[in-house]
Amino acid sequence: MNIVVVGTGLIGGSIALSARGFETQIIGVDANEENLKTALKLGIIDKSMSRDEAIKIADLVVLSIPVDAAREMLPSILDNIREDAVVIDTGSTKVGICDKVRNHPRRKNFVATHPMAGTEFSGPTAAFKGLFADKKTIICEKELSADFALERALFLYKLLGMSVLYMTPSDHDKHIAYVSHLTHVIAYALSITVQEIEKNEEKKIFEMAGSGFASTVRIAKSSSEMWTPIFRQNAQYLTDSIDKYIDVLKEFKQLIVEDKTAELFDLIKEANAIKKVLDKK
Amino acid sequence: MNIVVVGTGLIGGSIALSARGFETQIIGVDANEENLKTALKLGIIDKSMSRDEAIKIADLVVLSIPVDAAREMLPSILDNIREDAVVIDTGSTKVGICDKVRNHPRRKNFVATHPMAGTEFSGPTAAFKGLFADKKTIICEKELSADFALERALFLYKLLGMSVLYMTPSDHDKHIAYVSHLTHVIAYALSITVQEIEKNEEKKIFEMAGSGFASTVRIAKSSSEMWTPIFRQNAQYLTDSIDKYIDVLKEFKQLIVEDKTAELFDLIKEANAIKKVLDKK
Repeated sequence: MNIVVVGTGLIGGSIALSARGFETQIIGVDANEENLKTALKLGIIDKSMSRDEAIKIADLVVLSIPVDAAREMLPSILDNIREDAVVIDTGSTKVGICDKVRNHPRRKNFVATHPMAGTEFSGPTAAFKGLFADKKTIICEKELSADFALERALFLYKLLGMSVLYMTPSDHDKHIAYVSHLTHVIAYALSITVQEIEKNEEKKIFEMAGSGFASTVRIAKSSSEMWTPIFRQNAQYLTDSIDKYIDVLKEFKQLIVEDKTAELFDLIKEANAIKKVLDKK
Repeated sequence: MNIVVVGTGLIGGSIALSARGFETQIIGVDANEENLKTALKLGIIDKSMSRDEAIKIADLVVLSIPVDAAREMLPSILDNIREDAVVIDTGSTKVGICDKVRNHPRRKNFVATHPMAGTEFSGPTAAFKGLFADKKTIICEKELSADFALERALFLYKLLGMSVLYMTPSDHDKHIAYVSHLTHVIAYALSITVQEIEKNEEKKIFEMAGSGFASTVRIAKSSSEMWTPIFRQNAQYLTDSIDKYIDVLKEFKQLIVEDKTAELFDLIKEANAIKKVLDKK
């Protein structure tokens, strides 16, 4: 099976590493020549090709580029694949791409997916086998995918060791806004707030930063190239989540200002309940 | 040397474990009888005693209880120690406790410290040797401590493997507001926001939570007993930091609402710069 990975970065590269060797040939496509060279050198892909060449011989195309580029590129990929080929995307937003191809004559060859795994690093050097193991992937609008397409997508995610959740694109985008996109805004904003203070104070504030700070701000390293398009495509749900989050921050602030000890204690206890959720995972 | 650890939880317990055996006898004091039993069973302390008994024979008292209780208890401890004994506190706020004893006749026996290390867990079962290794401790108003007191505190922190930063109580509280206290508010608020959505939606939102979410929200497990008094004692600096943080969140929101791609991209790039700071640590 020829698997064409369009975008040989963290996600595409890690998929390639996890799928190599299972009677698959991994063909890398990347607008960035350096990435392609690195992916070849690191043994992430078997060979590199131009996009046009690769698409023609693909059994499975994995689209793992920023979500704006993926949405733009998908229709022409569907136009040019073989009739029995399958295309999946791996983007962190699903409404935009699903809307884009809903009426495409080859919509059935496409499976809209979101393998939920990542790190704060990017590019082929960040890719590693096992990134997806024991994690979850989401598939949206499976009823619009042909059985053979869905089967091939499921085969890939089985190779990767992932389990599958099905949901609508809007359910996906709404919920992922809270547990992933908002989380990134939170980390970015903390990074900027603390850097601002450090600049104004000329103090060694970072010498005081402990493991809690490092843990919370870790994903603020995540790449602008990937996350700017995600925030734009999920603008509505994300800004709703930011509003709700600011309301909770204001609640904390108000309780502190008014020195309402019992209420503050209870609110923190409520927050502690996340323990049950995290420990289950 | 008799080291009396008042509060045998995560911090006191970990100090005890790191200091045991160096010609020290570790005496545990805790209002919670269960904690004392556990600390004895786990070999965290050599023996337990009532506070009044222990204080009388102490060479070094380590006060590692919530910051409100520490502030209340410190004057009477100073009243009752031997003339050459030393008391240190380990609290995450320094203005409150320093103000409390500034004019105490035995202020010179006290060293105001903040060993900056911790986890989201609490109690003696959370304590471990090595929690403090290669981390930083802060000492405030060292000029108000006698040389012998400062030396004994430095001896302890050397045993723990920590390096020392000196600063004023208000500098400490201001900066720690950003890199620690605000970080906790952020995690608590994220926990509550996501739990609210999950409740209203009755969807399996937590199944979608990935490692970024887990990392950011990890410290939302931190105990209400410890953090409520910290937020109260550092109310002014902390609420300032929440205000500044909300401003940055609103900036993100506005750029997303107005779809200002280039500005959003640049703001995320600015946030990415935290990489330099984190990687140095």
